[in-house]
Order: sequence, then C-alpha cells, then structure tokens
Amino acid sequence: MAAPVVAFQGVRGSFSEEAAYKLLGPRVRVLACDTFAAMFQAAATGRARHCLAPIENTLAGSVYENYDLLLEHDLHIIGEVNLHIVHNLIATPGTTRRNLRQVYSHPVALAQCSNFFRKHPGVEKVQFYDTAGAVKMIMEKRLAGAAAIASRAAASVYHARILQTHLEDHRENYTRFLLLSKTPRVSAGANKVSVVFSTANVPGALFKCLSVFALRDIDLTKMESRPLRGRPWEYFFYVDFRGNVKETRCRNALAHLGEVTNFLRVLGCYESAER
Amino acid sequence: MAAPVVAFQGVRGSFSEEAAYKLLGPRVRVLACDTFAAMFQAAATGRARHCLAPIENTLAGSVYENYDLLLEHDLHIIGEVNLHIVHNLIATPGTTRRNLRQVYSHPVALAQCSNFFRKHPGVEKVQFYDTAGAVKMIMEKRLAGAAAIASRAAASVYHARILQTHLEDHRENYTRFLLLSKTPRVSAGANKVSVVFSTANVPGALFKCLSVFALRDIDLTKMESRPLRGRPWEYFFYVDFRGNVKETRCRNALAHLGEVTNFLRVLGCYESAER
Repeated sequence: MAAPVVAFQGVRGSFSEEAAYKLLGPRVRVLACDTFAAMFQAAATGRARHCLAPIENTLAGSVYENYDLLLEHDLHIIGEVNLHIVHNLIATPGTTRRNLRQVYSHPVALAQCSNFFRKHPGVEKVQFYDTAGAVKMIMEKRLAGAAAIASRAAASVYHARILQTHLEDHRENYTRFLLLSKTPRVSAGANKVSVVFSTANVPGALFKCLSVFALRDIDLTKMESRPLRGRPWEYFFYVDFRGNVKETRCRNALAHLGEVTNFLRVLGCYESAER
Repeated sequence: MAAPVVAFQGVRGSFSEEAAYKLLGPRVRVLACDTFAAMFQAAATGRARHCLAPIENTLAGSVYENYDLLLEHDLHIIGEVNLHIVHNLIATPGTTRRNLRQVYSHPVALAQCSNFFRKHPGVEKVQFYDTAGAVKMIMEKRLAGAAAIASRAAASVYHARILQTHLEDHRENYTRFLLLSKTPRVSAGANKVSVVFSTANVPGALFKCLSVFALRDIDLTKMESRPLRGRPWEYFFYVDFRGNVKETRCRNALAHLGEVTNFLRVLGCYESAER
C-alpha cells in the first residue's frame, strides 16, 4: 500500500515538511500547498489523507488562522508533534558575512532573529511570504549579497550554503503542529483532548466552563480565544486538556461542559507530543 | 495650553487616526509612527503624551503585538474607544470598476473583503503594509487600474475617489483601541480594569485565578493568552473586567489574585467604550 499523503503549507524544505517527517517517518508523501486554507481543503476533499497545521509557537504565540480553519472544516485532530525551530542564515554563492546586504524571510522568523539585525545594522530585513520560499527565490535569482533565514532542510533542498546557525534570539523555540484527518481516529496512546465552545454572554460563564475540568482534577494545557464573527465582543474558546474521551471523568466533564455552553465541539483525542 | 500629542501607528488617514479624533476630539495633535513599537516608544519617552494602540478587532481578533508591547513598557491604560470599521474601495483618477486590475491594502483589510474578490475574480489582491498608506502610494504613483481599501478619511487626505463603500464581508466590524500614558490616571467614570498575570504551571491554576472574580460576581469582558518566552507551553493571561480599583470588591479580588499568581500587574482602570 502506498504511504499516505500529508498536505502542508509552504514550499519544499519548510519547517512544516520537517514536522511531517518527524511525526510520520521519512517515507510519508507530502503535498506542498500555497496557503493554510488550501492545505485544509486538500484534507477535506481527500486529495491528501492528512494535513499538518502549525497551531502555536512558543515565542510568537498561536497561529490564529488555523484555529479559525479548524472550526470552518469538519476535520479531526488525530495527532500532534513539537518541532524545535532552529534558524539558519543561508546565502547565495559568493555572499559572505562581509558583503551581506539583505536578508529575506517570513516576518515571524525575522522577528525571532532581532539580535542578529541589531548587531548588523547595515543588513536590511526583507519580508517574504515563506522561510524556505525565500531560500528558493534568492537561489533561483542568484541575488548578490543576499541571504535567507530558514531551516537546514531548506539549505539542502535548494543547494545553498549555511553561513551561520542558531540565528534565533531564544533557543526555547518550538512549534506545535496538529495532524488533521477527515476520518476520526483515537489512537491507543491518546492522552489529550481538544475542544472548542462558546458560552452565553453572562457573568461567570467562562468560570463555569473551566469548573467542569477543575472539579474533576483534569489538567488544562492550553486555552485560546477567538472572536465570534457577527457577535462583537463575544468569543469562541479553544481548550486542550489531558485525558482520553473513553475515561469516565472526561466523558462526564464533556457532558457537564455541554450543559454550560451553547456550542461545543470535540476537535479530537490524540497522543500528546510532550516528552 | 497646547493640545496633547497622541502617537498612532500608520500614515495620515488611518483608522487609528480616526479613533484618536473620536476619543480625544478634533483638536488633538497626532504623531504618525511607522510601527507599533515606535508608537509605544514615543509615549514612553515623552515625545507624545499618549499613544493609541489597536488591541482587538471583532472579526480578526486580538492585535497580539500590542499585547506583548503592553508588557514590555511601563505605560498605563487610561481610556479606550471602539471604532466602526467601514472599508471603502478608493481609486486613482481614471480607474473605474471596468478597468480595475489591482487592489492594494493591509492583509487584514483584504481578508475582511473576501466576498468582493470572489465576485471579481479578475481583480488581484496586493498586500501592502498599511490601508491608508496604500491610498497614498497609488495616488503618488498614479497607478492605472489600481485601487486601495481604506477609510473614508484616507480618500479625503489623499484627494482620491471612493468607487464603492462597505466593501467588508461583515458589517459588525469594530476595532477597540487603548489610550496609553506614562502617567497613571483613573478618570471619574472608570468602570473597567485590565490586568496581566502568570500562574504556576499546576492543574487548576487558571480556574483559581478566575474564581477571584466569579466568587465576587465580577464580570470578565475579555481574556487573552500569550506565550511566556523562554518557558515553552506556559502563558501570560490578560483579563479585562468590569469594576473600579477603588471599589472594595475589586480591591479584594486583586489582592486575592495576587495570592494565586506568581506575577500580576494592573495595566489600568478606565472608562469602558461600551454603549
């Protein structure tokens, strides 16, 4: 049987592709998509078996577009993976630290390497839509005095040279990715649940929602809010907690949560990426 | 006495400038800044008396960079204002709906007008760093077949023509701005408090924090989380609640919150923009 196809956002050599190999092994087949929306669409229509969506980074925070896309599509979270993000300065042939003039990368990557730009005030930051895409572009155009900030894999894919590793300001830089599928699946080791809900706009509503977990000693690992479109100053809440939907206390907590919310959806039950 | 100066991010004609006039009256003097960081810096160094920071939009969600900048600077929230966002299609002379080819704007504004682009597949979206800045640029370059999406004020400032109003997908489009100042001030009508805190990473910690409000029937209006840099998968929580720091129950709630958090800062007590 052929290996499953996993859709990711970006070009070859992206951090997302690296995360796909880390989670699913080197034989997985990948489908590069231009946008997060296209990647969700690929998994929803069956063009790909899965998609792998970055959901939060320990420095930049949540990837809000993917929280919204989770709600817009009927996909299930069936796994997750944390990727250690290492930024490399990757240059075109002939570019050295001395003649370096411009560095291309995604705005988030540029922001995560601010110390480098403070130390080298003569080097211009240039925003690009993608990290690996920036390597591809500077290599195709053979830009003189140019470099990109991207993964080691991007340097390898586009045969570019790494001038410096660990350009990031903080080493504790991880991105968490969710593996999504049209078909629900709860794996044997599943120990984490993700839900999204909204509440009536009354005092204490969110407190009641969190009580269904606290009263059962269930540990929350993440909470995120997103605006409820069309209802100004109201929100969807996304909560991740430790547990398995087959455990009695989790089943009870979810039933209880259903009582105190006016919308509730279980996004998935899967094995945590935590060490 | 000269009117105070308020710093905002963007060029003349931006939604931020409109919000400044709405909150502080038409005589306020404004200082246009390139970036959010520069705007905070202007208020922190005294170059401007205040700065006005967009903090959330009812469709796009929170402006996370400004949440982070609140924590990095020692400024106080002394007021807020909600601005109704109306997107206009603003064209260069000679550009009509028939020969329109490219529309420039900030990515968030382009995303909020997706129905327009769906109806006009021949029109290309071009990302620009700023809404009003896009009007300025297309007018300065007299780009043929070009338009921008921006405020009515931007059309007026750059003497451009509005081809269509209400380009936005949803009418319920508001942005909330915070007025920040180096000097703390609690106005007579103050009825809202903003705080930021972090907790020990133990089960039930967030529930305990919210209990200090729920047990005193204090209504939360917003909660936001941001990553705690250097401590992966831990978060700062930003909470807005109704009340005044001089009320006993709010003073007690804050003292109680101090007991159950390992970091707590009151960002300000100010008059709510709610109708």
